[in-house]
Amino acid sequence: MTLVVGKMIAAHPGPGADFDSALATCIEECLACFQACTSCADACTAEADIASMVKCIRTDLDCADTCAACAAVLSRRTDTDLTVTRTLVEACLASCVACAVECERHAAHHEHCRICAEVCRRCEQACRQLLAALPKVG
Amino acid sequence: MTLVVGKMIAAHPGPGADFDSALATCIEECLACFQACTSCADACTAEADIASMVKCIRTDLDCADTCAACAAVLSRRTDTDLTVTRTLVEACLASCVACAVECERHAAHHEHCRICAEVCRRCEQACRQLLAALPKVG
Amino acid sequence: MTLVVGKMIAAHPGPGADFDSALATCIEECLACFQACTSCADACTAEADIASMVKCIRTDLDCADTCAACAAVLSRRTDTDLTVTRTLVEACLASCVACAVECERHAAHHEHCRICAEVCRRCEQACRQLLAALPKVG
Amino acid sequence: MTLVVGKMIAAHPGPGADFDSALATCIEECLACFQACTSCADACTAEADIASMVKCIRTDLDCADTCAACAAVLSRRTDTDLTVTRTLVEACLASCVACAVECERHAAHHEHCRICAEVCRRCEQACRQLLAALPKVG
Repeated sequence: MTLVVGKMIAAHPGPGADFDSALATCIEECLACFQACTSCADACTAEADIASMVKCIRTDLDCADTCAACAAVLSRRTDTDLTVTRTLVEACLASCVACAVECERHAAHHEHCRICAEVCRRCEQACRQLLAALPKVG
Repeated sequence: MTLVVGKMIAAHPGPGADFDSALATCIEECLACFQACTSCADACTAEADIASMVKCIRTDLDCADTCAACAAVLSRRTDTDLTVTRTLVEACLASCVACAVECERHAAHHEHCRICAEVCRRCEQACRQLLAALPKVG
Repeated sequence: MTLVVGKMIAAHPGPGADFDSALATCIEECLACFQACTSCADACTAEADIASMVKCIRTDLDCADTCAACAAVLSRRTDTDLTVTRTLVEACLASCVACAVECERHAAHHEHCRICAEVCRRCEQACRQLLAALPKVG
Repeated sequence: MTLVVGKMIAAHPGPGADFDSALATCIEECLACFQACTSCADACTAEADIASMVKCIRTDLDCADTCAACAAVLSRRTDTDLTVTRTLVEACLASCVACAVECERHAAHHEHCRICAEVCRRCEQACRQLLAALPKVG
């Protein structure tokens, strides 16, 4: 096993463990989605029907950027600002939905889109579960 | 002049110029904020009162990550998904506010916090103006 | 299993599979290292002996940035420029070594440093194996 | 003026000012190049001759990732590891050269490529000047 997210989350000296599991899962899915979307955008440019893949390249690249930022912010446990966390997870969720919808349109003819859509849907789900687990703001 | 954001935005073959100015300003402020926050987090760790700067380091790092992602997503004009754009700009705005509030607490004794707070407030303002300029979502 | 690196690498329409395994391993380790270093930098700021952790925070943050960039560049297979790939993997290797050396100094008293050092050493090894597997330039 | 790189560099409590100017210039050019390359990759996907722009999209995306990481690492002045700095600036230089060469091929017919090539060449130059200004490693 490569990722050690759960161990790193648990090794932080500060916070309790109230929503550790939802957090670790969301970080893992964000990392997987960052990689899958980066890979899918690149594979799209190598396809013969590249002209049909333009929107997919866009949604892939946006989703990769948002997931990377979200994975970093969620990995921090010190003096967390829940408004920052919530709005970023919501942005991540939106980019995962947009990318999943577009990749699903190409899933039948491009394996990278099929896999990427699955990863986006898993990340979307992890974002929803984290939003439900997070304490409410003020 | 180093940044060429306005020229790059204008050179895109596709979209019209409806909100180009608000977009270019927001990208520029996100880049400035990404750099200032990265620099401020690092300078905080070099201060004698580092133990008082812990929250500031956190808000700096989150703001840097969010601003970098926002600058990248806003720099794209092809097949824009307004829900993705809006939610990410809202996350950026939230991280700028959180970082400005914290940096302002240290502005009197740390010049890097004073400057960083100003940059965060400018980026916050640019995010608000872009949100007002963007077309509403369906 | 969260990461789908091997599947995404294999789904690219273009290149052969000459060094797929070394590539997929390196991407996975870069993602793990990006997360572990981000997490470790944050945990360091929450320790009572934060003043002793200043260099560790620095090496963590640099290593996180370099690993994220490396994971992205390595995930692309279209029209690869081997000079770009090699120099970036060498930078990643250097940042992993620097971070491992520093984290190892704190491994006995901080679990997050102990784990992070292990992840950095694994990523260092994956970078070395990829450099050995990559075709020579020109 | 949006960027405040020189002010942030000067506000750090620690290091002297030996190579501040080369450092600030390189950070500014990395930020400009990160934005221009992100923008150019996106504009390339919107062109009618997208099939001719595939390599340009790749070199743009790699250059954007490398420049963003380089801007972040160079913005830190605390406990700098010169081997990490040097190898990353060399990777940045390599990605700027690769992107400039490719964008220059399209400069006559795509304004975004013409501007992007100029920005890449400026960043390449700033990397060379920083490498010359940095202290030699041990």
